Amino acid sequence: MAMPEKMQAVVYGGPGVKSLKTVATPKVLQPTDAIVKIVKTTICGTDLHILKGDVPAVTKERILGHEGVGIVEQVGSGVTRFKKGDRVLLSCVSACGKCDYCKKQLYSHCEDGGWILGHLIDGTQAEYVRTPHADNSLYHIPDGTDEEALVMLSDILPTGFEIGVLYGAVQPGDTVAIIGAGPIGMAALLTAQFFSPARLIMVDVDDSRLAMAKTFGATDTINSATQDAVAELMAMTKDGIDVVMEAVGIAATFDICQNVVRPGGHIANIGVHGTSVDLQLQELWIKNITLTTGLVNTNTHPFTHKSAQ
Amino acid sequence: MAMPEKMQAVVYGGPGVKSLKTVATPKVLQPTDAIVKIVKTTICGTDLHILKGDVPAVTKERILGHEGVGIVEQVGSGVTRFKKGDRVLLSCVSACGKCDYCKKQLYSHCEDGGWILGHLIDGTQAEYVRTPHADNSLYHIPDGTDEEALVMLSDILPTGFEIGVLYGAVQPGDTVAIIGAGPIGMAALLTAQFFSPARLIMVDVDDSRLAMAKTFGATDTINSATQDAVAELMAMTKDGIDVVMEAVGIAATFDICQNVVRPGGHIANIGVHGTSVDLQLQELWIKNITLTTGLVNTNTHPFTHKSAQ
Amino acid sequence: MAMPEKMQAVVYGGPGVKSLKTVATPKVLQPTDAIVKIVKTTICGTDLHILKGDVPAVTKERILGHEGVGIVEQVGSGVTRFKKGDRVLLSCVSACGKCDYCKKQLYSHCEDGGWILGHLIDGTQAEYVRTPHADNSLYHIPDGTDEEALVMLSDILPTGFEIGVLYGAVQPGDTVAIIGAGPIGMAALLTAQFFSPARLIMVDVDDSRLAMAKTFGATDTINSATQDAVAELMAMTKDGIDVVMEAVGIAATFDICQNVVRPGGHIANIGVHGTSVDLQLQELWIKNITLTTGLVNTNTHPFTHKSAQ
Amino acid sequence: MAMPEKMQAVVYGGPGVKSLKTVATPKVLQPTDAIVKIVKTTICGTDLHILKGDVPAVTKERILGHEGVGIVEQVGSGVTRFKKGDRVLLSCVSACGKCDYCKKQLYSHCEDGGWILGHLIDGTQAEYVRTPHADNSLYHIPDGTDEEALVMLSDILPTGFEIGVLYGAVQPGDTVAIIGAGPIGMAALLTAQFFSPARLIMVDVDDSRLAMAKTFGATDTINSATQDAVAELMAMTKDGIDVVMEAVGIAATFDICQNVVRPGGHIANIGVHGTSVDLQLQELWIKNITLTTGLVNTNTHPFTHKSAQ
Repeated sequence: MAMPEKMQAVVYGGPGVKSLKTVATPKVLQPTDAIVKIVKTTICGTDLHILKGDVPAVTKERILGHEGVGIVEQVGSGVTRFKKGDRVLLSCVSACGKCDYCKKQLYSHCEDGGWILGHLIDGTQAEYVRTPHADNSLYHIPDGTDEEALVMLSDILPTGFEIGVLYGAVQPGDTVAIIGAGPIGMAALLTAQFFSPARLIMVDVDDSRLAMAKTFGATDTINSATQDAVAELMAMTKDGIDVVMEAVGIAATFDICQNVVRPGGHIANIGVHGTSVDLQLQELWIKNITLTTGLVNTNTHPFTHKSAQ
Repeated sequence: MAMPEKMQAVVYGGPGVKSLKTVATPKVLQPTDAIVKIVKTTICGTDLHILKGDVPAVTKERILGHEGVGIVEQVGSGVTRFKKGDRVLLSCVSACGKCDYCKKQLYSHCEDGGWILGHLIDGTQAEYVRTPHADNSLYHIPDGTDEEALVMLSDILPTGFEIGVLYGAVQPGDTVAIIGAGPIGMAALLTAQFFSPARLIMVDVDDSRLAMAKTFGATDTINSATQDAVAELMAMTKDGIDVVMEAVGIAATFDICQNVVRPGGHIANIGVHGTSVDLQLQELWIKNITLTTGLVNTNTHPFTHKSAQ
Repeated sequence: MAMPEKMQAVVYGGPGVKSLKTVATPKVLQPTDAIVKIVKTTICGTDLHILKGDVPAVTKERILGHEGVGIVEQVGSGVTRFKKGDRVLLSCVSACGKCDYCKKQLYSHCEDGGWILGHLIDGTQAEYVRTPHADNSLYHIPDGTDEEALVMLSDILPTGFEIGVLYGAVQPGDTVAIIGAGPIGMAALLTAQFFSPARLIMVDVDDSRLAMAKTFGATDTINSATQDAVAELMAMTKDGIDVVMEAVGIAATFDICQNVVRPGGHIANIGVHGTSVDLQLQELWIKNITLTTGLVNTNTHPFTHKSAQ
Repeated sequence: MAMPEKMQAVVYGGPGVKSLKTVATPKVLQPTDAIVKIVKTTICGTDLHILKGDVPAVTKERILGHEGVGIVEQVGSGVTRFKKGDRVLLSCVSACGKCDYCKKQLYSHCEDGGWILGHLIDGTQAEYVRTPHADNSLYHIPDGTDEEALVMLSDILPTGFEIGVLYGAVQPGDTVAIIGAGPIGMAALLTAQFFSPARLIMVDVDDSRLAMAKTFGATDTINSATQDAVAELMAMTKDGIDVVMEAVGIAATFDICQNVVRPGGHIANIGVHGTSVDLQLQELWIKNITLTTGLVNTNTHPFTHKSAQ
């Protein structure tokens, strides 16, 4: 059955404006493109930023969305690893596989890709989506997996895992604190457990999220609205926290991180920040700490896939 | 010949005040102590900070100095690797060799040591000094080495090498920029060459220092007083600098670093900062950078020694 | 209460001969020694090698044993981290904490230690034992822990963890095979799980051991007496095994390892070998593999301890 | 000017037989192919193995050669980074850039490439060659470089650097020994210097090669035909060699390696072996060594290129 000429899509109409519209179905533009019929998608916190007008690179009439699971409908002549009918996971990051960044697995900075879906090109909150560099940006889905759960692998779980857990270098026996129990913080909480930390402390202002964090493996929780998070975290440890992750994106939560990291410890910033923060270098210069930042590369998809099987 | 009862030493007398005084010669207090007769010592930028009153932990009557080369005069009963008459290099950091930090070679955070010489206990700007944990804090000097040059190994060269070059993870082929051509920046410049970067760019406000940097291996220099350092550094590269080192300790030089680091790059802060800095997380969160800080561990002494032979 | 002058100990009497004898209670010989009253000890496979006469460095009248938990009875003047009455775990490896090997955490090659207990000096199968370099070779036991279980931390668990899991570089999602389900193989099986491999395949000739391995976390088992282990392992994977551990010490089991390791994979040899093996370099030169060997360093005690708390 | 229909090429005719023949000029077969006009090529030791009949996968009528520099003549529709007229370096390894091995930079095991040129498909000892996966297997040449020298980058220099120096983990201050002063050993000698070892000892049976090694940076040389290489190497060091590289491919030279590696040291096997070797595990199990093997990935081309500029 051929693709329809028209489809429904969520279209950005400027700050605060989105609408479900009938638009033209996407076509293969490059030999390395695939057209994927979307089966499941979701809304990311980043989409909310876009809707607020925080991401000016997103122009009016852009179809939003960078996460999804679908079925390949059509492939360009240069696509060799996928064919019509394949069930696939879409990475939120498109990777050409050829540039210096891709060769270093830093797909987020691909010279002809990176995070472009639902940002610089049309995205996944639609019936069909064009995915550039399909061979390096789609992943086969094992039969019988829960496709709704798999959508979490487009962005959220790899973000928590790569930018929080791997950049933070969580080691067996570590004491880990995660500031922010939103979807990304929860993803970091789940995936930190791959490295068997001794203690996983979750900090948030919402008790119901903290309760959910407990069911996801948190060993301790702190409500920073009602408790002094820094004092509590320091009291739980001898010299501070081995790995502390910022999963909110504001100055106040970054502050908690820089006040509790132990000598030789790591701060992994995962949050999307809209403003600068005050870095206490007069305290930190002597503490031998490491601070990392990053946009997800989804270079761990081969692994997360393997685990999902 | 026995040690004299009295000796000359440079003594701190409060902010702005130092004097050469006659004081009691130090004695072995712990079995792991050694008393070393100082042959060569020097003045560190940190000593100038102390004299300004910036380091309140230094109390009046403290003998200053944490660098030096000398001859062992006396050892406690627990010292096994040194004996009277041995020529030694003193590390600026004392390491017990037993605590969790020492076991991870993070001697700067030793629970019974770290940087204490000329800070919390009497230092090396004297005829004799008591060195705690002598077996882990002194190093044998090969015969015939230039002892004046070796004083650079107490603190300056390892600081540039460990906190700049190793923490910055300089790799063959990298483009490296060093902001600040003082002794520490020069030490980073010299030791970065152990890893064969393709380009070594030195930034300072003093042309004579920049000229000296050229003789020490800098491939390019920028005078940030007369040139726009950020614009020049960006023009020299495609996407920015692989490894940029802050070797001054003020906000303006840190700013250069955060504005030129490339995606996936490293900022190694070596400078001693007295105030906080404004970290541009709204730009950096997406750039997958690594920022490190640190006090020297001098754990590379066995290597720098080996090279010196 | 003073220590008795005499004590009971298991004494080696030459190949095949051991006896429980009354011998002199050990004394502090060096300031860094401690005398520990043994509460729990065990018999290692290495002790059986010694009894067979395979370790000629062990002389007659040597007290055997290098594992144990006990109570500090007496300390030398240079011991600072332990005092009479402390409950301690003994490391099988003595570490001076001062030599180049100790500074690199390669305690197994300590210039004044390494594995000497029950080997070159009297060991732990006695009422009391002298432990050299006590500060770097003993570990405090948390209150209320199961001391019988803790004896596993003297040698067996760290050997499986350090020489099998860490040297083998087990990563989340890996397929791991362990050849040999004896105590060391089981220790590797348990501790590999700190890194969340996708698959943990145990190979042995004894069905009851394989059944026990299942309860310890093995996802698959192969009886190499009745099955072709190489064929089974290759059939389970696409290109071979990511990390394969040799935990027996004979040529036949090493052969399984070299025949199943995947391109880019790791062979971690843990077994104690009495003879050489035939390394198939004509096959392996092109496979980009890594082969590691090693005696335990017990440098992960701080971690395993932390986890035990 | 169009490509000629026919060209001259060196063709394999079975063991011991090669001839210069007129054959059909290659054509683009896949959209990712390029046709390159060869400007410079060379003969590798591997070609001599093929001619001896040691590599049965090479069939009669195969054009030999896997190294070269040339000019792009034609590209398939899927090639985006190269166009007609570009001057290029050819990698000896073809990489699809899409499979799991390529994503890990293990191009030597590419599922649709690896070392195939002059092996499984026609090679570079011809006027034109078809290069599969051109975007990931060719590299732009900077203007004005010495193209004869650049041919060394197709295989020889990256082999010495990746399989010898990087796999061997050469560090500043190390003592390094290289067994075999042929082209690969010389490449390891040159590129080891990127990491500033303290001592670089070259071992060979040919004095003129050893003399050349001295001009390439060897600090010491040993003629193993007239000297006892193991005894000499051990006499030069305290406990053995930090990193020892096998660059010959026979049992005798591998033996030198395993007899001189220090505790905690590395053996990097670079040699192509035709038979198995006797691995002295009864000595090595306790020495905490690492042994690596490998076929070149040429994943360091971006770096070696950068340095060449």
